[in-house]
Amino acid sequence: MDWKGRDVISVRDFSKEDIEFVLKVAERLETELNEKGALDYARGKILATLFFEPSTRTRLSFESAMHRLGGSVIGFSSASSTSVKKGESLADTIKTVEQYSDVIVIRHSMEGAARLAAEVADIPVINAGDGSNQHPTQTLLDLYTIKRAFGRIDGLTIGLLGDLKYGRTVHSLAEALAFYDVELYLISPELLRMPKHIIEELQEKGVRIHETTDLEGTIPELDVLYVTRIQRERFPDEQEYLKVKGSYQVNCSVLKNAKETLKVMHPLPRVDEIHPEVDRTEHALYFRQVFSGVPVRMALLGLTLGVLEGV
Amino acid sequence: MDWKGRDVISVRDFSKEDIEFVLKVAERLETELNEKGALDYARGKILATLFFEPSTRTRLSFESAMHRLGGSVIGFSSASSTSVKKGESLADTIKTVEQYSDVIVIRHSMEGAARLAAEVADIPVINAGDGSNQHPTQTLLDLYTIKRAFGRIDGLTIGLLGDLKYGRTVHSLAEALAFYDVELYLISPELLRMPKHIIEELQEKGVRIHETTDLEGTIPELDVLYVTRIQRERFPDEQEYLKVKGSYQVNCSVLKNAKETLKVMHPLPRVDEIHPEVDRTEHALYFRQVFSGVPVRMALLGLTLGVLEGV
Amino acid sequence: MDWKGRDVISVRDFSKEDIEFVLKVAERLETELNEKGALDYARGKILATLFFEPSTRTRLSFESAMHRLGGSVIGFSSASSTSVKKGESLADTIKTVEQYSDVIVIRHSMEGAARLAAEVADIPVINAGDGSNQHPTQTLLDLYTIKRAFGRIDGLTIGLLGDLKYGRTVHSLAEALAFYDVELYLISPELLRMPKHIIEELQEKGVRIHETTDLEGTIPELDVLYVTRIQRERFPDEQEYLKVKGSYQVNCSVLKNAKETLKVMHPLPRVDEIHPEVDRTEHALYFRQVFSGVPVRMALLGLTLGVLEGV
Repeated sequence: MDWKGRDVISVRDFSKEDIEFVLKVAERLETELNEKGALDYARGKILATLFFEPSTRTRLSFESAMHRLGGSVIGFSSASSTSVKKGESLADTIKTVEQYSDVIVIRHSMEGAARLAAEVADIPVINAGDGSNQHPTQTLLDLYTIKRAFGRIDGLTIGLLGDLKYGRTVHSLAEALAFYDVELYLISPELLRMPKHIIEELQEKGVRIHETTDLEGTIPELDVLYVTRIQRERFPDEQEYLKVKGSYQVNCSVLKNAKETLKVMHPLPRVDEIHPEVDRTEHALYFRQVFSGVPVRMALLGLTLGVLEGV
Repeated sequence: MDWKGRDVISVRDFSKEDIEFVLKVAERLETELNEKGALDYARGKILATLFFEPSTRTRLSFESAMHRLGGSVIGFSSASSTSVKKGESLADTIKTVEQYSDVIVIRHSMEGAARLAAEVADIPVINAGDGSNQHPTQTLLDLYTIKRAFGRIDGLTIGLLGDLKYGRTVHSLAEALAFYDVELYLISPELLRMPKHIIEELQEKGVRIHETTDLEGTIPELDVLYVTRIQRERFPDEQEYLKVKGSYQVNCSVLKNAKETLKVMHPLPRVDEIHPEVDRTEHALYFRQVFSGVPVRMALLGLTLGVLEGV
Repeated sequence: MDWKGRDVISVRDFSKEDIEFVLKVAERLETELNEKGALDYARGKILATLFFEPSTRTRLSFESAMHRLGGSVIGFSSASSTSVKKGESLADTIKTVEQYSDVIVIRHSMEGAARLAAEVADIPVINAGDGSNQHPTQTLLDLYTIKRAFGRIDGLTIGLLGDLKYGRTVHSLAEALAFYDVELYLISPELLRMPKHIIEELQEKGVRIHETTDLEGTIPELDVLYVTRIQRERFPDEQEYLKVKGSYQVNCSVLKNAKETLKVMHPLPRVDEIHPEVDRTEHALYFRQVFSGVPVRMALLGLTLGVLEGV
């Protein structure tokens, strides 16, 4: 597969082979980094992180990945000091920054911004989130986390919990999981059920789907529980929100009937959807999940830069 | 020439030999970078970028140049989080930062700030723009861009278009071009003609000068058309501004009688002085011009740091 | 002594042996850096600088130290763009960032924040100031500066000038100086005398203490004069403040009866407590003091990372 110069805009652009390849490269890089302490595949290369919308977590993860590969980083963490204020088009900003760098990571509040950037740039562009649209590296690191924890994705029973109606993260993850032989439990309040067209699409691809509002009753079935936040603004009245919020908080009591091997994931940041008491259990996988972002992004940076010969 | 420790504050401090030397070093570094992929002349050296006034473009260009030389970067991108707020003098800030770094790049809204910084610092200081005063690396990269495109500067006919009255960029460029055997067309609305004293100075140095308000009629004469923005606030009334703006927009129709080899330049960011349709023509040199900032700044950083032996 | 993985939260956690060891390592690193120009002890390592409260000076000093060790830096310079806004706990932010880095430097407006960060993180955490509480690297660099200037700390007579009541810097320094055989002059307005319990603690440890309001009369006794700012807001009325301020400004006239070898220190930034005319005298040690932050922080970063074998 020739990855050099390729853009990473949406998981929908990825075949199953693409995904498997990225996960394999990420695993090799993680192993090699552990053995050697420092890599220099990207020595002399420059990553430009263009965060028109702030996201410290995602920015630091990409920057860490680039440094772990031995490369350098330039960029900005909010749009406030850019030429956008002077009326410059996004296309011009991209064509300018590509003169200074070898790969661009962009985060933008506008849907489609990353695709546009990829079209005008000659160097690879990686989407770090464009509005409510796509955040492909999150999906890849979610898959990587599961694969590292279980040694496989096929055969697992996975619960997706929270706002399944609007949640970008769970939509992308569900679509990617459809490449695998998985059983999905969609656990949400009535108001926030996963859109019908996504469910049908998943079923067509052979995913076994169960919709439920009952978290505690579903727990014993699950290998993975993927938790996302439920936002107050989705509910017409406060009382309804508080009721829902209470019944979807993951704590040790909720987990008492879980398989011993159940892993709890969360894209973070969390507010109170997972009680901190879960952190100290073997179920907690969410900080390991944060870590997984680094080898996955190392793989994507290294592959699109074309510097990973021999990995 | 001994460049180690030298400050770069104004192009007026440069002799023709200085300019030629910087352009030659920049060209060698660009070639060497292309061949080797990574350089390490500045390994272990630290650039401090002090942007009291934001300028993402210029900051990223300098940071890219330092990384391309194998060095590191520290700094800030706006004054909001500095000790300036606590009442610290600029001199103290500079004398502090030079304890942490090997070369300083400063951008400041106050005219003369860079000169002051250079006076108090023991390490080299490079001016990245001080108010409406000087921005010497822009002028050097403009010259470098022309030289790389034509193989020479002597003998060219160059048009300067736009706000020639207030435009810092065109004043500095015109003064530097006076070192060469060039013919200049000064194309501007009446209200924004180049100041008489600059024109006289250029003529004394032997530059052949033509002043005109007619862009389209002048196009066929030109080897280079250097476009700058015309700002609304320069005009007493909106109607006058709109009329002028319209007649100075560079598009494919305006360029229909141009020499095939005409190159269009612009310091960027542009708003609508050059139509994006020009981007796809062989005339467009402005993104190459952005790129030229990197080797030119590599040369200046490397020379003032004294790390380019053998280049 | 095993420093790998150790946190640096308060100077109170340090024994005299700890302090002496850090100063010795700092001196070796400074010497080695001067000889070799570039070190690579921290190659492949990543420092995360988490400045929830801005402090450009301290941040740049740590970043410079990490680069001088050959390492990389990620981070943020103010809390405005972090997930704190989304309601994330400090503990979660720390547990996230430690997945991206090898050592954390934190500055936070909340007293105890650094200690909390150290408790939740598995990687070392260095306190760069938490509210009015502790700023241990400032104290260590103060000691380092004195030791480098005099070759020793024992036997010196040191004056602490300014706001001795609220000043975090002078409290920490005084406590650390109590490990040595020193004589202290505490010079302050009545309103801002050092708290009684600190003085008693110092005396118990054998420090000879003199309290005085008279700066000029004390000058001839001193080897070191450590100046800090007196803040207007400490005074109930403006007239009182102005009187005090005037009598505590260090200028050449005040220093006329000083020992030739007297060194003046200041944690900076200064406003007008030291007149710039002092900068040009042999007494001025405050910019050298700024520089000392780099080798001291190099030592702490290198030791806690466990990468200084052989230093």
